[in-house]
Amino acid sequence: MNEFNLIEKYFNWTRLDLTAVGIGDDCALISIQPEQQLAMSVDTLIEGVHFPINTSPADIAHKALSVNLSDLAAMGATPKYFTLALTLPEYNQVWLEAFSASLKTLANRYKIDLIGGDTTKGKLSITINVTGVVPSNKALLRSSAKVGDTIFVSNTLGDAALAWRQIQQNIKPSQNLLKQFNAPEPQVALGQSLIGLANACIDISDGLEQDLGHLLNRSQVGAKINLTDIPLAEEVASYLKETNDWCLPLAGGDDYQLCFTVAQDKVSEVKALEKELGIELNSIGVITKDIGLEYSKKLDQTCSSYQHF
Amino acid sequence: MNEFNLIEKYFNWTRLDLTAVGIGDDCALISIQPEQQLAMSVDTLIEGVHFPINTSPADIAHKALSVNLSDLAAMGATPKYFTLALTLPEYNQVWLEAFSASLKTLANRYKIDLIGGDTTKGKLSITINVTGVVPSNKALLRSSAKVGDTIFVSNTLGDAALAWRQIQQNIKPSQNLLKQFNAPEPQVALGQSLIGLANACIDISDGLEQDLGHLLNRSQVGAKINLTDIPLAEEVASYLKETNDWCLPLAGGDDYQLCFTVAQDKVSEVKALEKELGIELNSIGVITKDIGLEYSKKLDQTCSSYQHF
Repeated sequence: MNEFNLIEKYFNWTRLDLTAVGIGDDCALISIQPEQQLAMSVDTLIEGVHFPINTSPADIAHKALSVNLSDLAAMGATPKYFTLALTLPEYNQVWLEAFSASLKTLANRYKIDLIGGDTTKGKLSITINVTGVVPSNKALLRSSAKVGDTIFVSNTLGDAALAWRQIQQNIKPSQNLLKQFNAPEPQVALGQSLIGLANACIDISDGLEQDLGHLLNRSQVGAKINLTDIPLAEEVASYLKETNDWCLPLAGGDDYQLCFTVAQDKVSEVKALEKELGIELNSIGVITKDIGLEYSKKLDQTCSSYQHF
Repeated sequence: MNEFNLIEKYFNWTRLDLTAVGIGDDCALISIQPEQQLAMSVDTLIEGVHFPINTSPADIAHKALSVNLSDLAAMGATPKYFTLALTLPEYNQVWLEAFSASLKTLANRYKIDLIGGDTTKGKLSITINVTGVVPSNKALLRSSAKVGDTIFVSNTLGDAALAWRQIQQNIKPSQNLLKQFNAPEPQVALGQSLIGLANACIDISDGLEQDLGHLLNRSQVGAKINLTDIPLAEEVASYLKETNDWCLPLAGGDDYQLCFTVAQDKVSEVKALEKELGIELNSIGVITKDIGLEYSKKLDQTCSSYQHF
């Protein structure tokens, strides 16, 4: 199987946006509407680091695209195009069919076109570069939180981290936790709806504590967080009752949710959005003038986030 | 060293294009001029596959960006932005300093901004996603060669392939060959100059035979190539005299040159360009109506290009 046949067979889908030249030339060509900016992000997933060995190809594809879509969501961008750099240990038709089908399903759901890529031989690794569009100068940034803003997060925290902990302990996680770990849904519609509503926004895939920390840093503000307001799935709440391990939901990572800040006079709009999108949006605290992240009670331990090096 | 410090230390350079939000948010933000299209491409380089183990970090960085710039060159695009997904086996300060410095030097030479990235731990691998701009509907395509066009290639073919062969045989390649193998220069200025002049263009990094084959395929035409007109460096010409191994310059790969086709009445403009840019541009054949690639004499063997799988 040569690379060209592999691409033709598994990755040359019909494009959604026919204005772009897709796979088959040296580069893809993209036309952009005036009054739009591009948002771009890249993430690599490596077997055994970002997903367990023996994760299904469908879940790998889903997660690889989702984690990138989550970055677009955090800017309020509408997904448009992605490139795929796929490193495979061998040519495995069954694996590629499942990977390709799952990638295509998710790409179609979020209306994002695969416009280019590269396939190479090596340890399983997937790098996806996503491009979205956002109305000019309207993107949600990390740097524009204001003192007095209410801090919200979407859905629940710590689901994926608990699933991963249970897998490592040979406990079978619940379907709900497993779904958040293997096949998280990015909050694309939420991000788009937050344009003009939120003052600042960030994806909390590295864990709320670290990612909210980035937002505070860039905005030169602080925050007070009510731990009792942190939204938790039932399983995570039980785990916390047993262990008091707050670091799991605060720093466990792999939460493809958004954390955003909203001015007081717009908080009611967030509640309306919650109903409209059918997702939970909970206020967890407030932006303060005093630099630093303060919890409503002292944690038993200092949380550490995953570090590659 | 956490990922954020690593990025801050080695990859948060001053940006050339201050209209874009760069490293430090969930996505980079890019503004595009009206009347421009984006050209985008991605390539992965893996240690031991795309470059020998123990290649210097400076050469790795140079090659990783060059091979991508070569794809932009093939479309006539002006380089603008790139993202870097870097997988490293360990945190090595000396390696990262040399890699980062070389990448920055080349990026500045071609005026391309590093706007985002991801660093992960694993076997050394570099994925770069480049974005350029090109006047709308003016990009050089593979699909628009016309019967009767003269076929040109830039500079000489087979230099890198001979260097690699010599390295494998413990022969020290000449400085010239080694430069083409380790630190090739992409033909960016040539590509830009070919807009409005060439009918079709392709980067021949997989070897002339295979890549010209793609161009012919997409254009639904054929070609006659005069082997004696293929431009060869002195060392490659000597090697051919000894071995008659035409597959080295035709299919050896790693030639970051452009192959392009030009209508008869514009051939004199190519000659003018040669002087202006200070590079060799040689005509090697003609586009024919008859499908297929025909050489002026039969080769001793069938050439095979590198296949990952």
